[in-house]
Amino acid sequence: MEQQKKHPPVCADFPHMIHGGDYNPEQWRDTPEIWQEDMRLMKLAGCNEMSVGIFAWAVLEPEEGKFDFSFLDAAMDNVYQAGGRVILATPSGARPHWLADKYPEVLRMNASRTRALFGARHNHCFTSPVYRAKTAGINRRLAERYQDHPALMAWHISNEYGGECHCPLCQQAFRDWLKEKYQGDLEQLNHAWWADFWSHRYTSWEQIESPSPIGEMAVHGHTLDWKRFVTAQTTDFMRNEIAAVKAVTPDIPVTTNLMGFFPGLDYWKMKDELDFISWDSYPDWHSPKQEWEMAAQIAMRHDLNRSLKQKPFFLMESTPSLVNWKLVNKLKRPGMHKLSSLQAVAHGSDSVQYFQWRKSRGSSEKLHGAVVDHCGHEHTRVFRDVAEVGALLQKLDGVVGTMPVSETALIYDWENRWAIDALQGLNENRRYEETCAKHYQPFWRRGISVDVLDRSQDISRYKLVVAPMLYMADAATIGRLVDYVKAGGTLVCTYLTGQVNENDLCWLGGFPGGKLKEVFGLWAEELDSLYPGEQNHAVTPSGESYPVQDYCELVHLEGAEALAVYRDDFYAGMPAVCVHSYGKGKAYYIACRDTGELTDTLYGKIADDLQLARALPNLPEGVTAHMRSGGGESYLFIENYNAHPTAVMLDGAYRNLETDEMLQGEIAIEAYGILVLQKS
Amino acid sequence: MEQQKKHPPVCADFPHMIHGGDYNPEQWRDTPEIWQEDMRLMKLAGCNEMSVGIFAWAVLEPEEGKFDFSFLDAAMDNVYQAGGRVILATPSGARPHWLADKYPEVLRMNASRTRALFGARHNHCFTSPVYRAKTAGINRRLAERYQDHPALMAWHISNEYGGECHCPLCQQAFRDWLKEKYQGDLEQLNHAWWADFWSHRYTSWEQIESPSPIGEMAVHGHTLDWKRFVTAQTTDFMRNEIAAVKAVTPDIPVTTNLMGFFPGLDYWKMKDELDFISWDSYPDWHSPKQEWEMAAQIAMRHDLNRSLKQKPFFLMESTPSLVNWKLVNKLKRPGMHKLSSLQAVAHGSDSVQYFQWRKSRGSSEKLHGAVVDHCGHEHTRVFRDVAEVGALLQKLDGVVGTMPVSETALIYDWENRWAIDALQGLNENRRYEETCAKHYQPFWRRGISVDVLDRSQDISRYKLVVAPMLYMADAATIGRLVDYVKAGGTLVCTYLTGQVNENDLCWLGGFPGGKLKEVFGLWAEELDSLYPGEQNHAVTPSGESYPVQDYCELVHLEGAEALAVYRDDFYAGMPAVCVHSYGKGKAYYIACRDTGELTDTLYGKIADDLQLARALPNLPEGVTAHMRSGGGESYLFIENYNAHPTAVMLDGAYRNLETDEMLQGEIAIEAYGILVLQKS
Amino acid sequence: MEQQKKHPPVCADFPHMIHGGDYNPEQWRDTPEIWQEDMRLMKLAGCNEMSVGIFAWAVLEPEEGKFDFSFLDAAMDNVYQAGGRVILATPSGARPHWLADKYPEVLRMNASRTRALFGARHNHCFTSPVYRAKTAGINRRLAERYQDHPALMAWHISNEYGGECHCPLCQQAFRDWLKEKYQGDLEQLNHAWWADFWSHRYTSWEQIESPSPIGEMAVHGHTLDWKRFVTAQTTDFMRNEIAAVKAVTPDIPVTTNLMGFFPGLDYWKMKDELDFISWDSYPDWHSPKQEWEMAAQIAMRHDLNRSLKQKPFFLMESTPSLVNWKLVNKLKRPGMHKLSSLQAVAHGSDSVQYFQWRKSRGSSEKLHGAVVDHCGHEHTRVFRDVAEVGALLQKLDGVVGTMPVSETALIYDWENRWAIDALQGLNENRRYEETCAKHYQPFWRRGISVDVLDRSQDISRYKLVVAPMLYMADAATIGRLVDYVKAGGTLVCTYLTGQVNENDLCWLGGFPGGKLKEVFGLWAEELDSLYPGEQNHAVTPSGESYPVQDYCELVHLEGAEALAVYRDDFYAGMPAVCVHSYGKGKAYYIACRDTGELTDTLYGKIADDLQLARALPNLPEGVTAHMRSGGGESYLFIENYNAHPTAVMLDGAYRNLETDEMLQGEIAIEAYGILVLQKS
Repeated sequence: MEQQKKHPPVCADFPHMIHGGDYNPEQWRDTPEIWQEDMRLMKLAGCNEMSVGIFAWAVLEPEEGKFDFSFLDAAMDNVYQAGGRVILATPSGARPHWLADKYPEVLRMNASRTRALFGARHNHCFTSPVYRAKTAGINRRLAERYQDHPALMAWHISNEYGGECHCPLCQQAFRDWLKEKYQGDLEQLNHAWWADFWSHRYTSWEQIESPSPIGEMAVHGHTLDWKRFVTAQTTDFMRNEIAAVKAVTPDIPVTTNLMGFFPGLDYWKMKDELDFISWDSYPDWHSPKQEWEMAAQIAMRHDLNRSLKQKPFFLMESTPSLVNWKLVNKLKRPGMHKLSSLQAVAHGSDSVQYFQWRKSRGSSEKLHGAVVDHCGHEHTRVFRDVAEVGALLQKLDGVVGTMPVSETALIYDWENRWAIDALQGLNENRRYEETCAKHYQPFWRRGISVDVLDRSQDISRYKLVVAPMLYMADAATIGRLVDYVKAGGTLVCTYLTGQVNENDLCWLGGFPGGKLKEVFGLWAEELDSLYPGEQNHAVTPSGESYPVQDYCELVHLEGAEALAVYRDDFYAGMPAVCVHSYGKGKAYYIACRDTGELTDTLYGKIADDLQLARALPNLPEGVTAHMRSGGGESYLFIENYNAHPTAVMLDGAYRNLETDEMLQGEIAIEAYGILVLQKS
Repeated sequence: MEQQKKHPPVCADFPHMIHGGDYNPEQWRDTPEIWQEDMRLMKLAGCNEMSVGIFAWAVLEPEEGKFDFSFLDAAMDNVYQAGGRVILATPSGARPHWLADKYPEVLRMNASRTRALFGARHNHCFTSPVYRAKTAGINRRLAERYQDHPALMAWHISNEYGGECHCPLCQQAFRDWLKEKYQGDLEQLNHAWWADFWSHRYTSWEQIESPSPIGEMAVHGHTLDWKRFVTAQTTDFMRNEIAAVKAVTPDIPVTTNLMGFFPGLDYWKMKDELDFISWDSYPDWHSPKQEWEMAAQIAMRHDLNRSLKQKPFFLMESTPSLVNWKLVNKLKRPGMHKLSSLQAVAHGSDSVQYFQWRKSRGSSEKLHGAVVDHCGHEHTRVFRDVAEVGALLQKLDGVVGTMPVSETALIYDWENRWAIDALQGLNENRRYEETCAKHYQPFWRRGISVDVLDRSQDISRYKLVVAPMLYMADAATIGRLVDYVKAGGTLVCTYLTGQVNENDLCWLGGFPGGKLKEVFGLWAEELDSLYPGEQNHAVTPSGESYPVQDYCELVHLEGAEALAVYRDDFYAGMPAVCVHSYGKGKAYYIACRDTGELTDTLYGKIADDLQLARALPNLPEGVTAHMRSGGGESYLFIENYNAHPTAVMLDGAYRNLETDEMLQGEIAIEAYGILVLQKS
Repeated sequence: MEQQKKHPPVCADFPHMIHGGDYNPEQWRDTPEIWQEDMRLMKLAGCNEMSVGIFAWAVLEPEEGKFDFSFLDAAMDNVYQAGGRVILATPSGARPHWLADKYPEVLRMNASRTRALFGARHNHCFTSPVYRAKTAGINRRLAERYQDHPALMAWHISNEYGGECHCPLCQQAFRDWLKEKYQGDLEQLNHAWWADFWSHRYTSWEQIESPSPIGEMAVHGHTLDWKRFVTAQTTDFMRNEIAAVKAVTPDIPVTTNLMGFFPGLDYWKMKDELDFISWDSYPDWHSPKQEWEMAAQIAMRHDLNRSLKQKPFFLMESTPSLVNWKLVNKLKRPGMHKLSSLQAVAHGSDSVQYFQWRKSRGSSEKLHGAVVDHCGHEHTRVFRDVAEVGALLQKLDGVVGTMPVSETALIYDWENRWAIDALQGLNENRRYEETCAKHYQPFWRRGISVDVLDRSQDISRYKLVVAPMLYMADAATIGRLVDYVKAGGTLVCTYLTGQVNENDLCWLGGFPGGKLKEVFGLWAEELDSLYPGEQNHAVTPSGESYPVQDYCELVHLEGAEALAVYRDDFYAGMPAVCVHSYGKGKAYYIACRDTGELTDTLYGKIADDLQLARALPNLPEGVTAHMRSGGGESYLFIENYNAHPTAVMLDGAYRNLETDEMLQGEIAIEAYGILVLQKS
């Protein structure tokens, strides 16, 4: 692990941990004293970055073809003079009124085929040639103007891409995309969509329409291809935006801010267009849920973002205090701001950035948390929290470019999620994402690093692969899993594995499909569903009993061994958890959905068997640890999500980077505390 | 009872219990080996019928006017060669894409006046001349091609008719229907719809529009006439379909698959067009509800279907395992498949049929239960269950054509339901259907057969008539009820009886309207509503106390006797249950909604008083019994809905038709067991 | 208080308490015997008024320009001959079919830009020149025909104005209204709407559209101005209606029936057009809620209606029994009809009127309560209740024109409510109206009269002003509050005070905005939200502890004194309730939302400190008292909302106006009883 290389920083001449956030000086053009105050406060807060221009198009181009860069010129200069850098946004997330007025095609049409009026944001057509030309135009101008500005650090392409457009242009693009996918052969499409069902055969490409509540919603292949198209078309739109800036500034890195497991877009199809990954994280801290479960849930998202390009990412947005759009908007308790910010770093982020720098005076986000409050000064709890993070980050330049190392991969697959969301049979409690989170927790609790991948990634280098509810498994995926186990890998799957291929057509010949039955040594005949509150139990030969809920698959052993069997109901005694040796490897099959205990115990044993590396052994409940290494150095992050101080035993000597203290043996971490230690 | 005649079987030359289901070989045209396998498995499963072509239009007529019957030719031949018969469907439930493309009028328009896109199913305009011509055309061609095919047993007209269309053609048809109904006199319509309310007078027929969320929803007479029109227009569409096949095959019986108490269509207005009744039944077995309550609920639906034409019906669809569209899709516990299938037979079905024979590989129903699973072979629990039913049915040819005999009629009236659904005053907890079910249960628990009728049927032959919540009672209905009691009948009504006439206009002069006050010997002044969880009690003179919920009517005795009075609130001491002798009969009035105990006790006493015949006396909880007789033979079905074996005492000597064993005295029925016995 | 003048009655020559209600004889034109019966029953019920013609347009003008006043002629004559008066309605609440057919612009367009079909009511465009001309036309004709009819007592302008229209005419009117408001300067609008946020700048007035789910919903200034426009446009429409009748009958007073705190219209902007205020009250008596809490909630609405013009109002609608549109429609328990009716009088109503006189035979309101039931006679509980109220009102002529006197004002502000409803940050539990009700209750329980004002009213004459959740406080409002306290007033505000100005732009420099920080002697830094069920506590120095929920503001003392501090969480010890002397007055700040106990205790102490006058001291729970005085006379109303008799101690000698008995010392009031006493 010590041999691992260090990745270069995003900005070669600014090799620092980045601390900053979304900044909208265009809203304060008539109060230049506030611009000056922003710079004073930026330095006070230990910030070194501002993300500018995200929604500034109407100010930048007030009339078609007439430009006014004055506010942005000032912002670039000001930030640079204050010692910072700018991540400059392309403004496509919202457009000027004149653009929508003159070219209505840029506005989105919803699934009911109603064209939007002007308003809101993130609602443009991804196909419209006009919108592509206009966004490329403003992007190119921005690049031309600031290509040599020393503040320009990276491009923030658009903002939180998402949503769908069902306009005639998109319908035609969908048809063209399908024509290419199915090689111009409509019969291939009819087969993939199983079109003889309900007489839904297509006899012409022109008949194809996107899914609609006033049309077709129940043809799985159709739904799935539409979702794939939406990702493809959004990516294509983004490519068009990137090309415009890259033509002028080929060396300035580009990113776009992703949104965790946002169901609308398959980020694995977008990642290759980006130079580095960034994302927006808004945890529900202090909810009635266990604090550490929320922490693990966020941790899994950080791991996804790191895994996308297997290198450090940016935390592009997070709130310095609370948000204004949750059911209950809680203040962060003392310590939580630093803990939450540094958690991202622990998982591989080379930045801590905020939405937003200063609260807007009006409109929908005026009560969303910000570094600078409406009161306007630095004497707030939030500002002090931010400044504390700033001070710490300034000591972490060495961490930039280092990485956690994972021996375990967890498969969270977008297309599989779409298939599970669409499938009829599970209804309310399908919970794919939540189930993946439950299978992630046992590793988080043990300080074991996990990569989060989609089903198409290379898994050969991992000791352990966990793929919960892998309902959709195409032949290539099945092949990879078979080869992986055969070559000595350990694989864990669950109920609902390998039922359909990439077109959502069921595998014939018994589940799990194809050779997976051989790998797991079993056949899954039926799936029983339990009512909310109803339970069965999985019992081991030694009598341990674990509650089971929601789903019980009825499987028959064909070579596998039962590690636990059902206790109740007419399938009492049938296998609930199985293991099978296959080739040089092992395949586990968890036939039921448990409440967490069973999974935790099982993964604990597997982790021991495989001797999976832990950042720190023997972690108490509520505490986790992560290690980043590279270039011969290792940094240990120990995070305490308990509301009380918690004792942890170190496994060697470390230097606390915040205090410069040397630590070893048993130490206490304060409530919601985090330590950043360098191994000595 | 022994004198009762036996009805002829649906197919004169195939006098067997029918066992089969929906079969879609058109989905497997490129895998003929699967067609062959289907025939092998059909015989293995003891099946003798396939329902074919339900959604096959796009394959049968791939281009307008070009036909391809090859898959259907093969299916007809194959099934016949395997010893079975085919129920051939007309394919109007879904249409080919070209048909919707060329003639958009065939697509439905919703109540908000938006035309549907192509997609889904069961969504055509019932008025469109084009669709009527096209469906008649394909129907006639099917009839012409297969009129002499020996496999052709019956016609399955369309599939699960339902829904509404609000297109301009339907608006005009609605106006024409109204013009005929109101004899061309708009003032009659204005009076019936009480149009002076809110200035809603019509001064021209052209002003009339169907109910709409963007127009009129609150005029009860209007809403009611629209619902009547929807039934009339659907029936007219069906008549057009039937005429096309009857023109060629006048002797082949026709049916369409009904859906229990489906609220959208008044099946009593459709029944005369059909040669025999069939329906689709999907119970919620193993839900948190008491199992026997679900059984009674389904039993009431079977009885409705038998009562529609007072002869045996078909169970056209049921699932061999689970469905894929409930909140929780449970597997059937061992025994339940046979029990549930034979329950239909016990109530008068001469078939057990399934949706579906083989699971589709793709699209929305691919995970819906089927006889043949994706695994493709017969070694499944479900297949074995089906084959067991097949084996038993083969022994029940003698049952074909026999009938239960009922001395009790329960009124469930569609128009009354529509009126109750529309009325403003009861809001959330109106529960007409559920209330009828509560009044049906006491008979089910006692093995007493019940006919389920609408309010317009002849009731003179019954010993007892039960009409819960008969809010709508036109003058003719009131006349029938008065005559019935006068002539010696026993009638039970409840709160909310006889408040409106057939136009939903309130009866003036006090409720219940017209002579009903005399029949019941009381006047109902007010209706109090209770909050969820709030209770009152009905107490008898001897001190028995029964909980009461939801509704308490305040009635005044005008000749009747109070059997129980309210215990609480300002109406404590007022009558809660009344009885009145009228003519040679008796009329009971239950003024409140009870939780079930009161009703059960009351009906128990009435059943004793009237000596209502029971299939078997002294049934334990969870067990019921039904008798079918005819042609001098009687068959006793004893059904155990308990999850444990239950002892039953026979009242004579019987032969078990499944085992050929002779039984008498106390016998044990296994958990979810059913016995089919012949009286000896 | 004895010096207070008496207001003249609405109808100078009819100086009586008014008792009557909505009367629709047009529905019974073919049964003249029912018209005669109505008059007989009207006298029996002690009624002296009928509100006629509210939805009669289609009968009055059956064809465009052809009129038929025959039913109305008869009704006017009949009522007058029976000794009553008529409040004559303008019929704009619903229109004849021909009007909508010929001029579709009169129909409303919803926010999704869909034009309504004909149907329902209260759904016309408020801008349409055609509709304005047509309503003015029918109004003028009514006025011309009945200007000299002795029955004509007042005009009932339209019915329950409400709702919005988004048609092109309204869009243009909205733009014109904005142009005037912002003095033709689009930059003023852009600033007020903070339009640089999300690039929403307007560069032309024509770009402006009303809020829409398919367009803009999140720009607070925009939403707020739209709501203001809706009130302005509705008022303008009403002004047009009033002008038509005033042109002919300048001396006949006009009113329109308001609806309590109906959120759609700011009644303070409408009141000046009306000669007297009237409203429609439909309490939820006998709900699971405490009866007295419902009573206080309704009391607050009565007080609003009295405060609007600071003179007696009319209770224009109330139900004589139950309504037909609540979740649970309860009968009124014995006594409640009189209590509920006279409660209105206690708070300043000079009438008790009903919806409706006689139940319609058909359509949506046929089961809504009425004085005359479908049974048609007077021998009903409801009729007797009404007649009892009639008999009592006939003894209360002396009360007409007298008024309660209030030393306390509670601010309930419509624009503030709109701002709170729109703000993003509080989400589900914002509850502005409910919170105002909680702050009203302590006064109701103590028999202390309260005026209910909006934030723009003169408050200088009150001893105490309570302004819960005054989130929106423009500079003028802040000025008034500052001056008020400075001059010696006592002010109570809460968390979320003074955060935005009249454009919903946040005050800069810290909350509460502007000089309010000085007045309260504190700075409110952050707002924490609690999950449902989560609690904190406010504890006083002496150890009293009060539960706190939903919101805890974190404030810093800057001169104020903490009366209680938080007990729990990281802000334990921070102030929860503060008081500050400012000028000659005092300002209280309640930083948290309590469950009622804390507020009640605090207001009890303040009431004692300020020696606020009480109608009767020492009231037991569930009992309140109100005093009306004028012209040297005082009338005491004592109301018992308990379901049991309750003892009350009188503070002097009184004459019971119902029985003529003299009372003093301890008396018992029956369950749901009310006494109307004259001070002697």
